[in-house]
This record gives sequence, structure tokens and C-alpha cells, in this order.
Amino acid sequence: MPALRNSVELTQVIEWEDGHSKRVEDYLAAEEPLEIRVDGRPLTVTMRTPGDDRELAVGFLWTEGLIEALEQIVTLGQDESETGAKSNRIEVELQEGAFEPVEMQRNFFAASSCGICGKASIEAIRNRGLHAPNREFRISPEILCALPDRLRGQQQVFGRTGGMHAAALFNAEGELIQLREDIGRHNAVDKVVGWALLAGLLPLAQHVLMVSGRGGFEIVQKAIAAGIPAVASVSAPSSLAVKLARELNLTLVGFLRGRRFIIYAGHERCLLSTR
Amino acid sequence: MPALRNSVELTQVIEWEDGHSKRVEDYLAAEEPLEIRVDGRPLTVTMRTPGDDRELAVGFLWTEGLIEALEQIVTLGQDESETGAKSNRIEVELQEGAFEPVEMQRNFFAASSCGICGKASIEAIRNRGLHAPNREFRISPEILCALPDRLRGQQQVFGRTGGMHAAALFNAEGELIQLREDIGRHNAVDKVVGWALLAGLLPLAQHVLMVSGRGGFEIVQKAIAAGIPAVASVSAPSSLAVKLARELNLTLVGFLRGRRFIIYAGHERCLLSTR
Repeated sequence: MPALRNSVELTQVIEWEDGHSKRVEDYLAAEEPLEIRVDGRPLTVTMRTPGDDRELAVGFLWTEGLIEALEQIVTLGQDESETGAKSNRIEVELQEGAFEPVEMQRNFFAASSCGICGKASIEAIRNRGLHAPNREFRISPEILCALPDRLRGQQQVFGRTGGMHAAALFNAEGELIQLREDIGRHNAVDKVVGWALLAGLLPLAQHVLMVSGRGGFEIVQKAIAAGIPAVASVSAPSSLAVKLARELNLTLVGFLRGRRFIIYAGHERCLLSTR
Repeated sequence: MPALRNSVELTQVIEWEDGHSKRVEDYLAAEEPLEIRVDGRPLTVTMRTPGDDRELAVGFLWTEGLIEALEQIVTLGQDESETGAKSNRIEVELQEGAFEPVEMQRNFFAASSCGICGKASIEAIRNRGLHAPNREFRISPEILCALPDRLRGQQQVFGRTGGMHAAALFNAEGELIQLREDIGRHNAVDKVVGWALLAGLLPLAQHVLMVSGRGGFEIVQKAIAAGIPAVASVSAPSSLAVKLARELNLTLVGFLRGRRFIIYAGHERCLLSTR
């Protein structure tokens, strides 16, 4: 399949095991820079895994608060070579006046697991006018516990390379709605959000976002921007992620492994009562 | 110990296990923004774990190619509150002419696991004039295999939070020289490199850098900038990391677990012969 073909690279490596070494072929998670340009000017360069680049660009613009409606995007272009290879540059043309010039001057430079991009505090997030996601959403602990296996089972690239993050969108019944993989955690989230925006599905008020790595500040920020009420990960969140989740009342679950997890914020969405 | 005190935060969370939930106390890996200012102007904001901030700033300036000698730093300041709490801002004053104005205009915005900062290709790395690290360095496979346990055994914060990356410098005999932890992989590397620069130990031509996470492009780039001849990780490198390591002849080892590892580049430094 095309997406997979662009996402991995085959190379020759040397495997050493218990005193013996041999040459073997190995798959690598592909990593290449993507430049996002807006109205002819460079906005950001992000190191990403090629594939779903348009979704990534649109998702980035949305989760970073640079657009507020899909209609603000007039054109979304990516050159292709004669062989059909896509370029590492996305050109976005926005409606006149969609962009505050001051936003452009921030001169974002996102990279693997970035996403903060100069907006260095919860204060800045608050100033964007983001509000608490759907308070009525509920998801049962039993369904939460099933998500890690479903995510892993659907990851196409990780199994080959061991080096790919995933972000997956599930509904309250635990059904997988969409999954994206990328070498950068935050890119995987932007690809999912960009997909939803292009499909007219934002805000994602009835969904839980499951990420394969840590639930850091930037993941919580992006989830809130997409209206997602719950974020779950198999690993630990950071202190700032927890603060932001509590302040904006997003449900944040970590260490989701087997039949155990930790709720860091917004427990009312996944527990009926707490002793 | 002070460093540990700043690196973790205690908070109340809810633990759910097999149908039962209870309130417990939990440690979080601390994450806060650090602004690095040069000559009174903002250079970058990075999300980092507080502690060793001066080393982080100095290491960042070095690995990103913004300074070429410690002497170029005239002053390195960080305000403290009356209670001794350090501010989230580092002020660096450089020698006149140390900085190309064009460099300033790049307007870096690093963040957790960033490090690419707008320089989006191997071309840019090559243009910095970085050259291949010490070709004579050798490290035995047996010593390599011992590094992961030694790194984990020395991590102070990870055990409590499960959410901290580490970068550790070992010599060819496998002795731990320095270890730093941070919520951002690339910050942990910058802290180690900054420590070495302040201690007058650069280039680190007789050392191997072990990182707890993936060996991505930015980690290889920073290692080369510090003159480190070998990088090892327990996980997978990206395609671009492998390309850069091969081009600049850095030894890159991944999936270092138990008595097995994969050599992606520069095998001559850790193998006497290859079949």
C-alpha cells in the first residue's frame, strides 16, 4: 500500500548477537522534513514521516490556532515529481485576512514532538480562547482497557520498524475511527485532527484520543484544540500536561496497561463514582 | 537532593485497577518552558525539566552551531527569586561579533525532542562544517551490552515518574562519566554536552552517548556537534538519523537489549571483523 511504502525504508545493517554478527536487511521508520508555507512564506519545518502530508499541514494549522474554519483554506498544494513522488513542501493559500500578521512573525519551527512552538505557557493556551471539551462524554473503564491492544493491532509501520508513534481516535464504544503513524508523536495527532477537519468532523466531542507515547503538554493542547474530551496513553504525562488538562477539564489517562490505569484529570468522564 | 526536587512534582491522582478505584499520590516528571535569550533578544523557548538550565542553554548554543568556543560566552545569567527558585529564563551575553545576525533571525523554537529548528536537511548540517568524529575510537560489543542497565540504574527521576528521558556519557571502558534526565530527549543531550563544554571536555572524542529513547536525526546531529564518535539506544533510529550517521561516519547502534544490538553505521568502531 502506498502510505506504508513511503513510511518505511529498507536498509542493510549488521546484527550482533551473543558474539556473532551478520548482515541483515532492516526497515527504518522514514523521517524527512516537511516545510509548510502559507501565502508564499515559510511557516514551519517539521521532521515527519512522509504520508498524509496535507492532513498534517491542515491539522497543524488548526491545532496551533492559526485557522478557525476549513473555509479559510483557499488552496492546499503539494508538488509531485514525474514519478509521482510528493515533494517535501506544502503550499497553503488562506483567505485574505485569515492570518494575523503577528501570527506569521512567530515563525514556528515545529519538530518531532514539538508543538509548543514559542507559546510557552498555559497562559498562552488560555489566551487562545480554548474551552473545556464536552462534559457529557462518558467512556467506561472496561472499554479504555481494550484500547492499547486495538491501537497496536492496527499499527502498520511500528511492527516493522519499532520506531513509530501512533495516534488513534476511538468512539465511546471503543471502535477505531482513525489511526495515523509518524516518527513524531505530535505529527501523528496533527494528521488525525487534519483528517477530521477535512472530513468535516470537528469538534471531536464524542471521542477519545489514544497516543502510543507519553501524554505531554503539546498532545493535551492539540486534543483540546480539536474538542477531544479524553486523552489516553500507555505512558506517563508531564506535570504541565496534567496542569493544562485540569485547567481545561480534559480527561487525561496514563499508564493504561492491562487492567490498570491512572486518571490524572477529569475522572468524572470514565468513573461513575470514586471512593 | 535539589536537582531531583525540581525535577518531579507530587500530585493526587486516581488509580483504577480491575474495577476498583482509589486516590493515590503520584510523582510527575516536571515540564516547564525555558526561554534562552542572547544579547537581550529571545532565541528559543524549549519545554524542559527544570534543573541544569545553564548547561542546557550552553549545550544548545553549541550543538546548534551558534557558538564555537566557550570563550564567546561573556556572561550566563539566571535570576533567582528570594526563596532561591530559579527563573525560567537564561540570559546569555556573547562576545561582540560572535553571532551572525542572520543566525538570530532564524528565530529558533526548540521544544521537547526538537533540535532541528528550521535547518531541515543533512545539507544544512554539512554546511556547518561538521566533520567525522574520532575514527580511532573503539568500544567492545560486551561493554556496549552493559550500558542500558548502567544507565537505568543511575536514572534518579525515571523510577518515580516513568516519564523521563536520559542521556548518558560513557567512556570506552563502559564507565559512566555523566548522566542527565529531561522530559525532552534532545534537552538531556544538550545538558550533557553543555556540562562537558563548561568542564572543558569538548570534543568528547573517547566517548559513547547512550540515550534512553529513539536515536533520531537531532540526537545524531547533536552528538556529531560534540565530537562524540558513537551513539547507542535501546530503540530504533529513523531513516534520516541513519543517513546522517553514515554520511559523517558516526557509529550508530540501536535496539541494544540484552546480548543483542543492531549496528546502523560505523561498525568498525565496535567490531573487529564482520562476516
